[in-house]
Amino acid sequence: MSEKYILLNQINSPIDLKKLKPEQLNDLCCELQDYIIEVMSVNPGHLGSSLGAIELAVAMHYVFDTPNDKLVWDVGHQAYAHKILTGRREEFRNIRKKDGISGFPKMEESKYDAFGGGHASTSISAVLGMAIAAALEGNQQRNHVAIIGDGAMTGGLAFEGLNNAGAAQANVLVILNDNNMAIDHNVGAMSTYLAKRTTSESYNKFKDKIWRLFSKKDNEAYPARRIIQQFQAALKGSLLKNSNLFEALGFRYFGPIDGHDILTMVKVLKGLQRIQGPKLLHCVTIKGKGLKEAEKSQVLYHAPGKFDRQTGKIIETFLSPDEPEKYQKVFGITICELARQNPHIVGITPAMATGCSLDLMMKEFPNRTFDVGIAEQHAVTFSAGLACDGYIPFCNIYSTFLQRSYDQIIHDVALQKLPVIFCIDRAGLVGEDGATHHGNFDLAFLRCIPNLIISSPLNERDLRNLMYTATLAKNPFAIRYPRGKGVSNNWQNTPFEEYPIGKGICLQNGENVAVISIGHIGNSAIKVAQQLQNENMQIGLFDMRFLKPLDEQLLCEICQHYPHLITLENGCKIGGLGSAVSEFLLRNNLHNSLKIIGIEDKFIEQGDVNQLQQECGLDVQNIVRCIKEEWKKSV
Amino acid sequence: MSEKYILLNQINSPIDLKKLKPEQLNDLCCELQDYIIEVMSVNPGHLGSSLGAIELAVAMHYVFDTPNDKLVWDVGHQAYAHKILTGRREEFRNIRKKDGISGFPKMEESKYDAFGGGHASTSISAVLGMAIAAALEGNQQRNHVAIIGDGAMTGGLAFEGLNNAGAAQANVLVILNDNNMAIDHNVGAMSTYLAKRTTSESYNKFKDKIWRLFSKKDNEAYPARRIIQQFQAALKGSLLKNSNLFEALGFRYFGPIDGHDILTMVKVLKGLQRIQGPKLLHCVTIKGKGLKEAEKSQVLYHAPGKFDRQTGKIIETFLSPDEPEKYQKVFGITICELARQNPHIVGITPAMATGCSLDLMMKEFPNRTFDVGIAEQHAVTFSAGLACDGYIPFCNIYSTFLQRSYDQIIHDVALQKLPVIFCIDRAGLVGEDGATHHGNFDLAFLRCIPNLIISSPLNERDLRNLMYTATLAKNPFAIRYPRGKGVSNNWQNTPFEEYPIGKGICLQNGENVAVISIGHIGNSAIKVAQQLQNENMQIGLFDMRFLKPLDEQLLCEICQHYPHLITLENGCKIGGLGSAVSEFLLRNNLHNSLKIIGIEDKFIEQGDVNQLQQECGLDVQNIVRCIKEEWKKSV
Repeated sequence: MSEKYILLNQINSPIDLKKLKPEQLNDLCCELQDYIIEVMSVNPGHLGSSLGAIELAVAMHYVFDTPNDKLVWDVGHQAYAHKILTGRREEFRNIRKKDGISGFPKMEESKYDAFGGGHASTSISAVLGMAIAAALEGNQQRNHVAIIGDGAMTGGLAFEGLNNAGAAQANVLVILNDNNMAIDHNVGAMSTYLAKRTTSESYNKFKDKIWRLFSKKDNEAYPARRIIQQFQAALKGSLLKNSNLFEALGFRYFGPIDGHDILTMVKVLKGLQRIQGPKLLHCVTIKGKGLKEAEKSQVLYHAPGKFDRQTGKIIETFLSPDEPEKYQKVFGITICELARQNPHIVGITPAMATGCSLDLMMKEFPNRTFDVGIAEQHAVTFSAGLACDGYIPFCNIYSTFLQRSYDQIIHDVALQKLPVIFCIDRAGLVGEDGATHHGNFDLAFLRCIPNLIISSPLNERDLRNLMYTATLAKNPFAIRYPRGKGVSNNWQNTPFEEYPIGKGICLQNGENVAVISIGHIGNSAIKVAQQLQNENMQIGLFDMRFLKPLDEQLLCEICQHYPHLITLENGCKIGGLGSAVSEFLLRNNLHNSLKIIGIEDKFIEQGDVNQLQQECGLDVQNIVRCIKEEWKKSV
Repeated sequence: MSEKYILLNQINSPIDLKKLKPEQLNDLCCELQDYIIEVMSVNPGHLGSSLGAIELAVAMHYVFDTPNDKLVWDVGHQAYAHKILTGRREEFRNIRKKDGISGFPKMEESKYDAFGGGHASTSISAVLGMAIAAALEGNQQRNHVAIIGDGAMTGGLAFEGLNNAGAAQANVLVILNDNNMAIDHNVGAMSTYLAKRTTSESYNKFKDKIWRLFSKKDNEAYPARRIIQQFQAALKGSLLKNSNLFEALGFRYFGPIDGHDILTMVKVLKGLQRIQGPKLLHCVTIKGKGLKEAEKSQVLYHAPGKFDRQTGKIIETFLSPDEPEKYQKVFGITICELARQNPHIVGITPAMATGCSLDLMMKEFPNRTFDVGIAEQHAVTFSAGLACDGYIPFCNIYSTFLQRSYDQIIHDVALQKLPVIFCIDRAGLVGEDGATHHGNFDLAFLRCIPNLIISSPLNERDLRNLMYTATLAKNPFAIRYPRGKGVSNNWQNTPFEEYPIGKGICLQNGENVAVISIGHIGNSAIKVAQQLQNENMQIGLFDMRFLKPLDEQLLCEICQHYPHLITLENGCKIGGLGSAVSEFLLRNNLHNSLKIIGIEDKFIEQGDVNQLQQECGLDVQNIVRCIKEEWKKSV
């Protein structure tokens, strides 16, 4: 740790933080800012939101009696300062790396992480559970705080939590960290609503009043009743011109206040501590605060990769012209191409327009592209509604978040056979985001849904053609593909080709052992096959392309020629392709052997994708090993 | 059709309805009331909510140009009058019966059913999709109406829909059918909020104003702008004392009005037709309206079974003392027993307290029992929060609704290994509620989740002991059981027994063929085995009890002794027990044959459970047939 972090170096836990004088807190925040920028410039992570929540984290650990009091960070990628302050200052350098600390709060990592983060909108429900537990124990003193962004607040789960907390009269404080941004710019009525509040003249007036109120009377004896009265007088006088969403839901609403004004934050939190029942503090923050470039380009700096810590300039990694494009880009370019040809094609994303490249369509067809905010359930049922009227919705959702819309896929789309196309991005292992974000379960949980076509492209050309095929299929249609690069760079020059649904292809004929894969991971099998050819082992190689309908004819042919089968998928072993082939073999009384290569039945931690593939046995070396083992059985 | 239905007999579609004079509508509503009561008294269904929505249905088809205008009934079991008015008057007598019309709106049944119902809170998202589709076509005239109860309004999906519709400025009308009831009494802050609105003095004043407003000026030329002005003047003068939740979300709010006052309803709807953009009409209705007993006991008469149509008295079917209890009752009695012994046991239900019998615990331990409203996602994450603090939450959710909380099970419970116990009620085929409500997928979608124990009781005693075992397991734990009766009546007299986790049991030794079952359906296998014994075929019989961890040791033993295996489960074939045994056989290079008995890969329609079991091949006869087929192979 550099010596320049004078205050930070003294803080090994919130106990040390509490020893600082209020007037030192600002300096501490500056040091945290510097330190986060220093680390993030070389070890990329979620920069913008964490810079925006430094004062929040400091104020909360300064005021509250953590870990006895419970702080739950919603999503949690904004909680870097929290991690640094709670005994993980040095470990922070290895955040999101394999065997390093997680990019999200994680219960097993620290007692200060009261609940794990990752997916959005969970914090209010979790905190209410803890608050009710305390109430059952007769503990009215403990504080329970959910820190939630305005983006996460649009998720249905957050609303369900608010609706229950507002009625429960439990000791819950919701801190609304309002930067008017999710990953992309925030959307929806709530966003407009919050913006109205924060841009009103009354904002500054209110801030001043609060300031005076607490400056004069910051002592424990000052009774809660009077604080409430004065708070409310301040509020009513200046703010209650429009309806208050949160008060309608049973919360006492306070704010908005400046979430970067550390001394006000501390005073307000101290005041709120003494007020029982459900309350919401609306803090206005700036994503990327303290790094000019990041403040200016908030979407870009959400997770900017490496950058120059002095200038803030992102260190660009140029793709050479030979380098393959990312699947995300292929999706974005292709949907625009399709949309140009067919006016009924529409695009839907729950708050991931940039991440999934739907922003390309948004630019070209703003009326036909819908960012619905963090609302995966709505994304799917809204798509179903569009499909009822003859539209062809491409609903792009990350695999891990598709879990949120499972019921809607079954009940609103598949059951009604509506032609919604699910483009499932970031399927399989995703890397640094870790256990909460891997898309390992989708093949398994989708396979049992009737009427659903499930496909996965081997390469860019296949993604393109599957998207095209899906527009013709008039049926619920899932296309799953991983995060990151494809394999070739000339995918764009071919005309669209309709693929026969439920048909796999033979990539290579051979003997003894057949590798049957689905999706991009099949490219590893191709590499392996080439390698083995040099060792005089010519294996069979098949790309199923569709998990459902399963190409039983192809499987029959494979079974006739190859005694030993290996299935290969970037997803959990249980319930996916391997499972489908198992069922097929037994249904047909076939006695071929089968080895399933896939992800074991456990949650996989973070790391570089290559490291994780190795850990899970999805790497080339392990595939070679498995094939050789099977090969031996034949000779 | 009896002659007494003078008006109803004339109505074969909404076109006929529109021929009636306004002053005839009241009589029509009375006839609909009589007819629904007549049919429901002998063919049970969702009585209460449908009686409450008669005037709504009449008014809407009278005013709107259906099916061109889109009406989407949320959940849809309140839409019986809608079905009767839209060409299904005679078929209504067979509602919910096999091959009869569905208890819910269903797109393939009628062009007037703009979107299928079943699960709650989907209507706003679906309607927004249609409204956006119309807007894309340049159609500003078409109306898009979601009719949603106050119960369904608490579901997160409804909020996501509101948040998007409020910002979209699309032509959406939300009719809030507020009877302050879901199936059980409604809960949460929104419920309190709505109650405040409807009990305020201003309610009647407002009603009068609206009445006068439209009485005088009910002509098409009257411009929308002035309607809005006067509406709002009426509102502002009397109602806007507290915050308006819906206006904060970008909706124009109208109401509350009396949802049984058909003429006012017609006038108000005509007025709203001329107002563009998102708007919400708050209608107050009485569940069970028109049947005194039903109005008095709204929970009981939600779906009362058969009753006397004159007196309204429910025709009780007495259980003889020898008759087995329902699994639901076993759950309710057992959780009370456990809660008496262990103060950390808490119970959670999303709006199904009576249906799942958690009401028993609610009576005895009101502080430790939580009805969270229609909010399955919250139910699970809230349970996770309670578990963080050392509580042992029994989270009871119907299998079909568990799909709503899939992500929370994975991300908030299983990943963090929190000891939440999922009691999954109404697993497998449920009967008359049909395709939207069967719990056929849970074994498949849960099996791929790491860290989760999955069990299913063979009988009442097992349910009791599995619940007890789960309290000791300190691990996420799922227990799935069907709707309806168990098998014996002396389950309550034995002390609790801890079951070894992941261990199945042998029910009967035999030869040639082994039947391996999970759950209550195993009782059919027991019957079959007895029958076959009489024919000198002694098969092996095994109850796995746990799907996960799978008892591989037992399976190994079975494989050594029986060349032919049959798995039996009340769930989809893909991904469940049969799939697990398939994977096991191939993983261990075993060449036993395997026949999977389960539900084929399709959605199953409604019917009596016995009929459906027959249709799906889960009946005793088919099990016998399958066993004999396998037996023959051995001899």
